[in-house]
Formats: sequence, structure tokens, C-alpha cells
Amino acid sequence: MTGNPLGISFVGSRMDRSDHIRGNPELLAGMMTPGARLLRLEGLDPVISAESRLEWGSLAEARDNAELVFLGRQDDRACFAQVPAAGSVAPPNPGLWQAIATLSGEELATYGGARTIVDWHARHRFCARCGHTTVLAKGGWQRNCTNEACRAEHFPRVDPVTIMLVEHEGNVLLGRQPRFPAGNYSALAGFVEPGEAIEEAVAREVQEEAGVIVRDVTYVGSQPWPFPSSLMIGCHAWADDPTVVVDKTELDDARWFTRAEVEDAMQALERNEGGSAFRAPPRTAVANALLRWWVARG
Amino acid sequence: MTGNPLGISFVGSRMDRSDHIRGNPELLAGMMTPGARLLRLEGLDPVISAESRLEWGSLAEARDNAELVFLGRQDDRACFAQVPAAGSVAPPNPGLWQAIATLSGEELATYGGARTIVDWHARHRFCARCGHTTVLAKGGWQRNCTNEACRAEHFPRVDPVTIMLVEHEGNVLLGRQPRFPAGNYSALAGFVEPGEAIEEAVAREVQEEAGVIVRDVTYVGSQPWPFPSSLMIGCHAWADDPTVVVDKTELDDARWFTRAEVEDAMQALERNEGGSAFRAPPRTAVANALLRWWVARG
Repeated sequence: MTGNPLGISFVGSRMDRSDHIRGNPELLAGMMTPGARLLRLEGLDPVISAESRLEWGSLAEARDNAELVFLGRQDDRACFAQVPAAGSVAPPNPGLWQAIATLSGEELATYGGARTIVDWHARHRFCARCGHTTVLAKGGWQRNCTNEACRAEHFPRVDPVTIMLVEHEGNVLLGRQPRFPAGNYSALAGFVEPGEAIEEAVAREVQEEAGVIVRDVTYVGSQPWPFPSSLMIGCHAWADDPTVVVDKTELDDARWFTRAEVEDAMQALERNEGGSAFRAPPRTAVANALLRWWVARG
Repeated sequence: MTGNPLGISFVGSRMDRSDHIRGNPELLAGMMTPGARLLRLEGLDPVISAESRLEWGSLAEARDNAELVFLGRQDDRACFAQVPAAGSVAPPNPGLWQAIATLSGEELATYGGARTIVDWHARHRFCARCGHTTVLAKGGWQRNCTNEACRAEHFPRVDPVTIMLVEHEGNVLLGRQPRFPAGNYSALAGFVEPGEAIEEAVAREVQEEAGVIVRDVTYVGSQPWPFPSSLMIGCHAWADDPTVVVDKTELDDARWFTRAEVEDAMQALERNEGGSAFRAPPRTAVANALLRWWVARG
């Protein structure tokens, strides 16, 4: 175990991915027994039991000709999930949030990993190189083009995103996207682009969105975020000049908050109360863990 | 500037990506002037001048109907690269290594960023969701499906890879892949999978490839690696039990080296000499920077 000292959500699945089985057709076929488990999903959403656990069925529940992803093994049982008819790049709706908030951290991580890969399959049924159909391969960790002249291999996406707390004289820079509920602020964030180091992506995003120059970027923690396939890379950076120039095409607002304001907002969130200077990001978001880390380091 | 204290290659381009121009057709059209520069490429390889600089031409050199990527602005001039007929997922050949080794760090970074994105376009001319053709959009930072019923938007890939130095009692664990030249060893590495935090990917890869359990994973530095589109995430971790069980399907060998052996190998590499316990990874690889960092921290 590598631990999860910051208490980041979607981390800590006990699933043993058993990579060596994926590429071995005989071993993989040997996993598909009556004792194997199939994660119950409605589309991309989990089916959650009255005891707030993920529900699992048997492979007999899979649709005919369903594409099955081998998630790995847990408690000596092979675990699968089936690819739904359609994927989605939409953010989760409030109902899904409420449902998954009842799951343990470990089960939330298992669900997130399963969701992101079956969603990828559902949205990648064709070859980006030649346009022909693709088929699931290696237990669901690859898709292969069926065109003999192409034969391209495709792999699930994991899209790195930097998300950062920028600090200046004890204050932290937070912003709000237009889609946020009123009063909500969170850490600035953006995708790492081709050709960028993590530190370069952090500096570029903060400058683009808030006009602030940063230095001394450090890594804090990471989170796999399954809506649809981000790897959130949480960082901290320092600013010498607090002047903010908000990019209104990206953000409604960005401004500095004191440590006391952040601490107050985190406590209000936990107690589900209002009255704080802003509404903090939810516990499931890595920004929440980053802010808890920042408050605690004082 | 965020600096590059570890001296990591492919980092430090001076290109201003000018994100706000990409999505604005008028501003983008305004960049396509006679003064705009076109990066000279032969396929995916750079054309390098006698002075060991990247060569740039004008947009007049682009093929008819070429797809053009807006790289950004540098020294007040707009910079473009054209999408080649074919991309490649193959590792670079020795000739390319020799050529790019003569470039400055800044120009190597500019080339790497340009290569990875034009390569992505060349290998993603079709919609993975519906199989129809796609067209370049937003100055080359997106492709859009041309099928009215689909309209999927596709974004360049950046594939996070963990690469790690595992330490036990002053020794470091290195491995060699079957494709390495004889005597070469480097840091273990592997793609971050859907559903994994960086720390979890590090732990899984080391256990899979070398049977070693790690703890206390920390981040060291990152590198965009353009062959074809990796984001190398360099980490350090500790092992309590040095027992190595090599996964022979992945590695020829993995074993522990002393700090003195690593220091000797790094010096031999710089002097282009043999005689060390192993041959260290080249200066362009992030593993080289990680090993220099590890030797220096003593």
C-alpha cells in the first residue's frame, strides 16, 4: 500500500489489476467462471445496495455479445464490467453525486476505475486512424482495428490535468467557472497540453486564467477523476505579484482568500451550512483535499 | 518562468501558446501573414540548419490544403507546423537522436511539442465514436467529427507515464527492457492506467515488473516525451525488502545498483566511455535527470 495521506477521493481500490492475465487468452478465459463477478451498472451509473455497497452480479447477467472488461481480481474472484451502449463526456448529475457519496472510499475508487474504462470503450468503437470498426482486446485494456491494412492498436485515455493552489502572503487564489453554483470557488485547473511539463502547464494555466505569474511549483497529490478520464495532478505554487486579471471567457471570477476564510468555508461545508466567504469544493473533488492540506500546513 | 532545476530535456520552450487565439477564427486568420513562420519538417523529423538550429520557412512552403497547427507566438511572430501525410508511434531512430542532440534545450522542447501534436493529427483523421472523417479545429488543438449526427470533439492525447527510482539502503533499482542495447539499464516505467493515482501506478508497476513493494512515493519532476505523446512523471519510492522477482515478459533484468556505480556510469556516459557497471540512460531521457538528482542528493 502506498497510503492516501491527503484523503483523496477515487483513490484506494483493493482491485488487483492482474496485468499478466489480460494479454493471455487462456488465463483470461479461465477467469470467466460462474464465480466471476459482474459490476452492476445502469448505463455508466452504479447500482448501489441498501447497505450502500456496489452491487455485483454474475457474468450470466451480461447482455448477449456484450464487450466485457476484466477489471482484475479481488478476494480471489475475477471482476468484470460490461461496456454500455453509450458513453458520456457529461459531468455527473446531482443524483449520481448523492448516490456515490454513500460508497466507501475503496468502492468509490473501484467504481471510478470501472466507469472510466467502459465509457472509453463505448466512445471508441471506431479506429481513429482509418475509420474501420475496432474490437475489444487484452481483457478490455486495448482496442484493435479490424481493418487488415491498418491493424492500429488503441489504448484507454488518461488525460492529465493540473489543478493548483497559488499562494501569496498567506492567501490562496481560487476561481469560479460559469457552470459553478453561486458562491462556489475552487482551485484553478486545466489540461496538460502536448509538449508541456507539469510545472509548465501549471504556470501557463494560472497566467491564462488569472494573469498571475507563479514560481516554485511543487506537486501535492493526484486523483483519477472518471468524468470521463482525467488524472488530476494537484500542485502548489507561489506568486510574488497578487494582481489578478480574470480571463472572462474561462472564469466568472478569480480572487484571493485568506487562510481563515478557507478554514471557515471548509468547516461550513462539513456542517452543510452557509455563511462562509465562499462555498468550498465537495469532498469528492481533489481541490477539497488540496485545501484541507493547505489549511493544515498553516 | 518556472525554471528547470533538474535540467530535464524537452522542457523550456519559449513558445507562447496564445490559447485565446486558437478558438477565435478572426484572430487566428490574422496570424497567417507573410511574416508567419512554418516549422520545416521532413515527415515528423526536424530540418536542422548548419548552425544546429531548427529551420523555419514561411506559410508559402506549406502543401496545398495542408492542415496547419498554430503552435503559438515567439519573438512576435506566429509559428505553425503542418500535419504530415503519416504519423508514427515508433521510437526515434539513431539518426534522429543524433540530429536533435545538437539542438539547444529550448529548441528541442519546441520541436517536441510540435512533433507530438502534428503526429496526433496524422493518426486521428477519423472519429473514434462514429468512424466518419474529422477536420482540424481551433488552430490544431482539436479535431471535430464531420458527421452531423455525431459532432464529437476530439483532443490531442497526452499519456501520463510513471517512471521511478526505487531506493533500498542506498541502492537504486534499475531494469533493462529487451529492446535496450546490451549493458543499458534505466528506471522502471509504465503508463498510468484509468482509475489510478500517480502513487498507485508507481506501486503497481514496480510490483508487476520487479516484484518489489514500495512505500512513500514522492514526485521528482516531469517531462513531455514526444514519441509519440507521453508525459513522463518522475518519482522516487522506498523499498523495505530488496528481493527482486523479474517479470521476464516485460524486462530482461532488474537489479540494485550502488550510488557509486550510478555515479560512475553517469560520468562514463558524459565522457562517452565504457567500463562502468552499466550504461546509463541518455541525457535526453528523464531517467538521466532522475539519476543525476539521485546521485547529487547523496
